[in-house]
Amino acid sequence: MSPDHVRKLDRLDPLAGKRDLFVLPEGLIYLDGNSLGALPVAAQQRAAEIVAQQWGQDLVKSWNTHAWIDLPVKVGEKIAPMLGAAVGQVICCDSISVNLFKLLAAALQMQTDRHVILSQEDNFPADLYIAEGLGRISASGTLELKLVEDNGIEEAMDESVAVLMLTHVNYKSGKIHDMRRLTQLAHDKGILVVWDLAHSAGAVPLALDDCHVDFAVGCGYKYLNGGPGSPAFIYAAKRHQDRIRQPLSGWMGHAAPFAFDTQYLAAQGMRQFLCGTPPILSMGVLDAALDVFEGLDMQVLRDKSRQLGELFLEQAADTGCLAEFELVSPTDSTQRGSQLALGHPRAFAICQALIDRGVIADFRAPDVLRLGFAPLYLRYRDIARSVEILADVMAGKIYQEEKYSKRQKVT
Amino acid sequence: MSPDHVRKLDRLDPLAGKRDLFVLPEGLIYLDGNSLGALPVAAQQRAAEIVAQQWGQDLVKSWNTHAWIDLPVKVGEKIAPMLGAAVGQVICCDSISVNLFKLLAAALQMQTDRHVILSQEDNFPADLYIAEGLGRISASGTLELKLVEDNGIEEAMDESVAVLMLTHVNYKSGKIHDMRRLTQLAHDKGILVVWDLAHSAGAVPLALDDCHVDFAVGCGYKYLNGGPGSPAFIYAAKRHQDRIRQPLSGWMGHAAPFAFDTQYLAAQGMRQFLCGTPPILSMGVLDAALDVFEGLDMQVLRDKSRQLGELFLEQAADTGCLAEFELVSPTDSTQRGSQLALGHPRAFAICQALIDRGVIADFRAPDVLRLGFAPLYLRYRDIARSVEILADVMAGKIYQEEKYSKRQKVT
Repeated sequence: MSPDHVRKLDRLDPLAGKRDLFVLPEGLIYLDGNSLGALPVAAQQRAAEIVAQQWGQDLVKSWNTHAWIDLPVKVGEKIAPMLGAAVGQVICCDSISVNLFKLLAAALQMQTDRHVILSQEDNFPADLYIAEGLGRISASGTLELKLVEDNGIEEAMDESVAVLMLTHVNYKSGKIHDMRRLTQLAHDKGILVVWDLAHSAGAVPLALDDCHVDFAVGCGYKYLNGGPGSPAFIYAAKRHQDRIRQPLSGWMGHAAPFAFDTQYLAAQGMRQFLCGTPPILSMGVLDAALDVFEGLDMQVLRDKSRQLGELFLEQAADTGCLAEFELVSPTDSTQRGSQLALGHPRAFAICQALIDRGVIADFRAPDVLRLGFAPLYLRYRDIARSVEILADVMAGKIYQEEKYSKRQKVT
Repeated sequence: MSPDHVRKLDRLDPLAGKRDLFVLPEGLIYLDGNSLGALPVAAQQRAAEIVAQQWGQDLVKSWNTHAWIDLPVKVGEKIAPMLGAAVGQVICCDSISVNLFKLLAAALQMQTDRHVILSQEDNFPADLYIAEGLGRISASGTLELKLVEDNGIEEAMDESVAVLMLTHVNYKSGKIHDMRRLTQLAHDKGILVVWDLAHSAGAVPLALDDCHVDFAVGCGYKYLNGGPGSPAFIYAAKRHQDRIRQPLSGWMGHAAPFAFDTQYLAAQGMRQFLCGTPPILSMGVLDAALDVFEGLDMQVLRDKSRQLGELFLEQAADTGCLAEFELVSPTDSTQRGSQLALGHPRAFAICQALIDRGVIADFRAPDVLRLGFAPLYLRYRDIARSVEILADVMAGKIYQEEKYSKRQKVT
């Protein structure tokens, strides 16, 4: 594909203006927005305002005057339209892991005669760890975590399964599950479904209500650009909200937190998922970060994200630089999220060589080079340039240089 | 006490210089540092640095280059000396409520034949809610939360009790428990003890190791000045760390989080208490805020805090403005934390009238006016002035004005 064509893609990009809403380091090509989203200008401003004015000057009064107390609801409702969720079903709080614990425990209590959580072997391991942890203290005492391969999920759905827990877009391969179909199949067997939207929210259009999803969790710091360790969110379908009892029953989830009653009485609706005092600074920054999505058609975002990935593969094919790689992601761009996973035994060294050359990619053990395409701030020319750099690294076998081949992954 | 004497107290205050380390609103007297600590200058600077440089410029690389991955340990170790805790026993993470859940579950698993959590009726209710929540899903299925009055704790410690859960400084009255004695008595009966240090850490000297405390939790946003909803901390005695299994087994608590193993393997030491990705912005700000304690003798802090409270009561006695109040806190300043609780049927209206006059106090339902004395940034003259304002409010019965008497507490 010619440079002219790449320039044309940028010129015609309906999202081109969004890039100006971000602070981006000069000269860097950031292909890791699926790990940590870039900094929105509004988020930087909000951080300064929360610290200087809300905390520094207005102090404890800000719980009312700046409505800190409502921030989890406010942020949840800002995320909701991106999930295809009507009002009153999304709240921002804690981390994905903590939220998953709440939801799995709540779902299991709704399924008193079933004791299996079904999930996928290559699900994001943290999700599996949480199910394991819950199993260790679960009242049933017989909670079983059953892991199957991707292609064995449908077959494994039987009447023993209480909860199906899946990640919508696989963290490594980027493969997208058919949410509508799997949710329907699960419901046919009386199974509740918990979806992890970590690599979906803000990247692919979602229709949770329309797919009759039961529960979901998602992440604030990837495509939602909320900053490092930004709080996560929970979705719970309205129809379930009156029957939920979740075990992390902290005071912020109480019907009247400041009445200081001795006994817990869960709040109505989504507030019942709140636990301790929320990290206002991190959550307020996420609130501001979400404004870049205002009025945005998620399909336009999705179209660009697919085109970015396709451009990468086309350009790479032209240079032949992927000869040694295995495409771990689905070849059809409609079947993968906003990322590409490229398998190579030296993926870690290649990733390091790219980073040294200003292309921030990600490595996922043991052998995957992961490239994320955040369509809000990446240009087509960035993709073309990143392919040139990868081609140099591969052609010159630069990743075999001692400093790369000997470098070890620490974290 | 004469104005001269008050001036002298300020002049001789060994902590006077610490006030300059804080951003404080002009003309405000802030007696609510026990709810939300004031803003340290260093915290403001750090917030800007984390956002602009670490997130904005260095992006995902900051997990290594700015050691985000070690932040929970680093912050924990900064807090440790204030708790009288040797290295390797404190970590910063999540909220008090979430952390309490981890510890209670872990402690109960160490006490397989006992099923009672003993606590105090007027413990901070959120702590009770968490014990309740754990009880609902606990594997024993028979977990009982037993609540007794303050003076019934010792008698209630018997061989049925697995865990004694107490707040060291009562959130309302400020009454201090004898940590050494109660921990010893509990151990004599084979009971493990979990202390909540929300109103202790950064306000009163603590000696957790020396008192053979088993477990503790504490708060980052009160006397530690970490900002609204700042992450909390956990203390776990070294001797227990190899036997702990906590159910919120998220990936940050895994021995090798980035190996992406399917099975959970808990990290050694305190990292096993980590769950999801920490809120770096909020935690980094707490890290900077803690520097105001560097090299500080906690006894000097405690002495000033007691003197501030005593000055308040002396000045108030001179004016007679406490005639209608009941002192809910212990009269002996050695028996209370860094706060005073004053009971009055119209406490809410009085609190509002004070706030309108620039004295930020706190109300605790149903009838307590709570005044916190944060010795790092309060001057003796502030205390004297706050008494004058309270005296005006009481003498003029200003709190009976329609706008106060009709105002309702919302949050």
